[in-house]
Amino acid sequence: MTRSDLLLPSWREGSTRDALLNFLEASASLAPADRVATFDNDGTLWCERPAYLQFLFFVDALQRAADTDPSLRDRPEFAAVLSNDQAAIGELGLARVGMALNGLFAGLTPEAFSTAAREFVDRAVHPVLGLPARRTVYQPMLELIEALRGHGFAVFVVSGGGTEFVRAVSHDLYGVPPEGVVGTLVQHEMVRRADGGPELRRTNLLDGDANEGAAKVTRIQSHLGRRPVFAAGNSGGDREMLEWATAGEGPSMALVIDHDDDHREFAYQGRAESFVENESITEVAARLGWTVASMANDWTTVFPSAD
Amino acid sequence: MTRSDLLLPSWREGSTRDALLNFLEASASLAPADRVATFDNDGTLWCERPAYLQFLFFVDALQRAADTDPSLRDRPEFAAVLSNDQAAIGELGLARVGMALNGLFAGLTPEAFSTAAREFVDRAVHPVLGLPARRTVYQPMLELIEALRGHGFAVFVVSGGGTEFVRAVSHDLYGVPPEGVVGTLVQHEMVRRADGGPELRRTNLLDGDANEGAAKVTRIQSHLGRRPVFAAGNSGGDREMLEWATAGEGPSMALVIDHDDDHREFAYQGRAESFVENESITEVAARLGWTVASMANDWTTVFPSAD
Repeated sequence: MTRSDLLLPSWREGSTRDALLNFLEASASLAPADRVATFDNDGTLWCERPAYLQFLFFVDALQRAADTDPSLRDRPEFAAVLSNDQAAIGELGLARVGMALNGLFAGLTPEAFSTAAREFVDRAVHPVLGLPARRTVYQPMLELIEALRGHGFAVFVVSGGGTEFVRAVSHDLYGVPPEGVVGTLVQHEMVRRADGGPELRRTNLLDGDANEGAAKVTRIQSHLGRRPVFAAGNSGGDREMLEWATAGEGPSMALVIDHDDDHREFAYQGRAESFVENESITEVAARLGWTVASMANDWTTVFPSAD
Repeated sequence: MTRSDLLLPSWREGSTRDALLNFLEASASLAPADRVATFDNDGTLWCERPAYLQFLFFVDALQRAADTDPSLRDRPEFAAVLSNDQAAIGELGLARVGMALNGLFAGLTPEAFSTAAREFVDRAVHPVLGLPARRTVYQPMLELIEALRGHGFAVFVVSGGGTEFVRAVSHDLYGVPPEGVVGTLVQHEMVRRADGGPELRRTNLLDGDANEGAAKVTRIQSHLGRRPVFAAGNSGGDREMLEWATAGEGPSMALVIDHDDDHREFAYQGRAESFVENESITEVAARLGWTVASMANDWTTVFPSAD
C-alpha cells in the first residue's frame, strides 16, 4: 500500500484521481508560502441546487418576519419570493430581490447575524435530498482539502455567496477560519452605543462588486495577498479564478466539478459569464486543459455518512 | 521559576508586565476562536520616526526613477519630496503627495511590488538609529506576539500603511502571513496578457478609505471577520480599534505604546483624530483604563540584538 492509497478514498481510481495525486506530489517543489488553494463554495464544496442555502436562509427569515409583520407581504420583492413566483422574481431582477432580502438583516451586529445563520444551517433539511444541510457538503472535496493541507497548503474559500454567511459555518464544515473566507461583502458601519462604546452594524449596501468572475481574482489579492496554484470551481463565475491559478510558473491545477449526476445529486452545467460567450465551464476546461471531476464517474461517495 | 518568568523577558517587572501576564492568564477562559489579537504596525511593532519606512521606500523609488527620467523632478509633488520641502508638501497635501508617489508603482504586478519592497527593506538603514531596517522592530512586542500565540491567539497586523508593503515583510518580521495583514488598500485590476491569460496590475486608486480610525474596525470585520479581544496601537488612528477590542464581554485588553524614550528611540505623542479633539492617545488610555507601555520604563530592550 503506497501513501497515495490513503489519500482521496472517495475518488474512484482513474485519470482525475491520478491528476490530483500527481499535482499533490509535484507541489513538493513549491515554496511553502506558495502552496495556496482556493475553493468556490456553492456547487464546489456543497450542494447549490435547487437553491443556494443562503437564499433559503433569507427566505426563512422573510417568512418569520412576515409572520410578525404581515405588511411585509405587500412589498413586491417579498410577495414574489413568498409565492415562489419565478417570473415575478425575474422581472424584478435577482439583484433587487436579493438586496431586499438582505435588508431584513440590516442593523444586526456581526455576532447576531452569524448566530442566526448557524442556527438556520443547524436545522435546515435539503428540500429534495432530505439530508441535513450540514451533510450536503461533498465528501470527496473534504478529502481533497485534507490532502492539500497534508501537503502544506493553506486552504481558502472564495465564494460568490455572502462572506458573513459562509464564515458562520466555514470552520465547522471545512476547518477554514473566518479570515480565510472571501465572498460578496456587505458593508458594516461603526456606531456608538449610548455609553460611547463602539458597535458594528450590518448595512444594506454591498462593499464592491458581487464576488464573481474577475472580482474573485482582485479580491483574492486584496484580502489574501497570495496567488493560488490550485483552484476549484463549477461555474462561469469561477473561470477567472481558475485561469489565475494556472497562469503562473511552476506546478498548478484547476479543477472543475461537473454536475452530471442526476441520480445522487443534480445534473446541470455552469455557464461561463465572460470572455467567450455561451461556453460552459466544462467546455472552457476542455479548451484550457483543466481537470474535470465527473460527479457521476469520479466520486464513489457524494455526501458524508451520518456519523 | 514560574511559567511567567519565561514570558516577556524584555518587559521590566512592574504593573504593565503584570497587566499583560494577567490578561494572558485570563484569556484561558476564552473560546479558542475568540483569541484574536490585532497590532498596529508603524510605531507599535516597528519604528515610525523620523519617517514611515514605506515613505522612505517611495522616496527611494522616486530618486531612482528621477535618475532615469529627470523630467520627473519638475512635477510639484516630486520636487517637494526630492528637496524635502516640508512646507511645499504641506501645501500640496500629504494625500496628494502620497498618491503621486504611489503612482510610481502603478502597473506593477503584486509580485514585482513585493520584490521591490523586500529588496528595499533588506538594504535600508535607519537614518538616525543607524540600524538595519529589519532591526527597527520592537523586541518586547515580538515577545508579546510570541506569548499571545503560546496562549492560542491568532495574531493580525492592522496597519494604516499600505497592505502590500506590510505583507511583503510581515511573515519574516512577525510570522504573520499575507492574509493576516489588513491595511490601506490599493486597487488591482485584472488584465489579459497577449496569450489571453490573466494578470493583476497595481492601479493608482485606493480601495476604500485609508486604514485609520473607524476604518480599522470595519476592515477588521470585512477582511478578518473576527473581533479582537486584544489590540495594541500608539496613535489616534488606533483608537477605535482599541475601543472595539475592549467593548465586548469577557477578558480583553488595549495596550498603548507611549513613545517617551528620546534616548533609545524618539519621544512624541500620538494624537487622537476623532471623537474627542486634542486628546492624545495616552490621555484616552488614562480615561478609558487602558494599559500604557512606557518605552522608557517598561522595556529593558527596545530593538532585537544583531544575531
